[in-house]
Amino acid sequence: MRDVYHEVLDSIGRTLIEMTGLVGAAMGRATAALLEADLQVAESVISADDAVDALQHDLDARALDLLARQQPVAGDLRTIITSLRMSADIERMGDLARHIAKVARLRYPEIAIPEDLRDSIKRMGEIAVDLAQKTAEIIEGRDVDVARELPEDDDAMDELHRLLFGALLDKKDEYSIETAIDVTLIGRYYERFADHAVSVAQRLVFLVTGEHD
Amino acid sequence: MRDVYHEVLDSIGRTLIEMTGLVGAAMGRATAALLEADLQVAESVISADDAVDALQHDLDARALDLLARQQPVAGDLRTIITSLRMSADIERMGDLARHIAKVARLRYPEIAIPEDLRDSIKRMGEIAVDLAQKTAEIIEGRDVDVARELPEDDDAMDELHRLLFGALLDKKDEYSIETAIDVTLIGRYYERFADHAVSVAQRLVFLVTGEHD
Repeated sequence: MRDVYHEVLDSIGRTLIEMTGLVGAAMGRATAALLEADLQVAESVISADDAVDALQHDLDARALDLLARQQPVAGDLRTIITSLRMSADIERMGDLARHIAKVARLRYPEIAIPEDLRDSIKRMGEIAVDLAQKTAEIIEGRDVDVARELPEDDDAMDELHRLLFGALLDKKDEYSIETAIDVTLIGRYYERFADHAVSVAQRLVFLVTGEHD
Repeated sequence: MRDVYHEVLDSIGRTLIEMTGLVGAAMGRATAALLEADLQVAESVISADDAVDALQHDLDARALDLLARQQPVAGDLRTIITSLRMSADIERMGDLARHIAKVARLRYPEIAIPEDLRDSIKRMGEIAVDLAQKTAEIIEGRDVDVARELPEDDDAMDELHRLLFGALLDKKDEYSIETAIDVTLIGRYYERFADHAVSVAQRLVFLVTGEHD
């Protein structure tokens, strides 16, 4: 019985890693769709998010079933509760990638982002993908040291987010209200994606060490 | 032993209701601060959010302690897990009210919202407060019928959110980029607040009926 139990626990961990891989890939593709006005890629990101939602649903069902049947205590209990919280964060990261793809689709065949802001958005996309990648590694290796690097990446994201608003305001005569709306929402989506990745990492640190950073 | 257990379970329910009351009040005050450029009210909303965070922290600790010590099954287990998820939603609603108060503070002594958009924002604030109020009642009375009304209120919020963007775009020459950024973010905060209220209500419906709406 304990073997089946630990198999399920392992499978939950694998699903978290799989979900994180999917949302990281989605964010990379959403950024490409946005910067290249690629409708087909945007559509594929939007429809692929269903798979992440299904994985979350399935993971949560397995976790709740474990709680109900096995009544785990101490470390295992913490692992299962933390997994539920991580899956909620990662599912939300998928939503945010989908939101970005939807802006790309809405503005197609135009590129929603003005030329001089594209480098910043590209960099935000890279940091987001990198954060997802690191988050998957952190879950896989229960690697507290890598987890502690994430707030620094998140600071870089926040800084780019601030610069983006600054750039909008600096050359305000060159941008339309529509562009200001799009860039504001998109900037927020990247920033929230990064926040959720950091949240997953912090949950892992707490799980492994029992201490909040 | 069972009596202490049910006392704790009841206390978790009371904390959820208390938290919902606090975030509803915060949203009402944040809206007033925003529309009247009232720095003092804005500051009080920002600092009051710590109390919501503390309540969540405390609630989660009690819930996890119950899970570990009492190993509840079936209905009680579902109640505790659902309470954890609700507390996360409600805590986030508090963050969103705080975000709105922060915009009010940032633009003080100016009013961040242009005159002709203030009615829309006022209405969004009213719907948000009403949603929080209903959510508290739903948790208190485990009232599935009221819970099923919430998506309609949320639709009204979404419609106002769309109108807000429409108004920005209609008279684009009259608004600054700064205003477009502020209004876009604020609109998003109200909309997300409503989404989380609906999410809490849906969790309650699922808890009571075992069925997703």
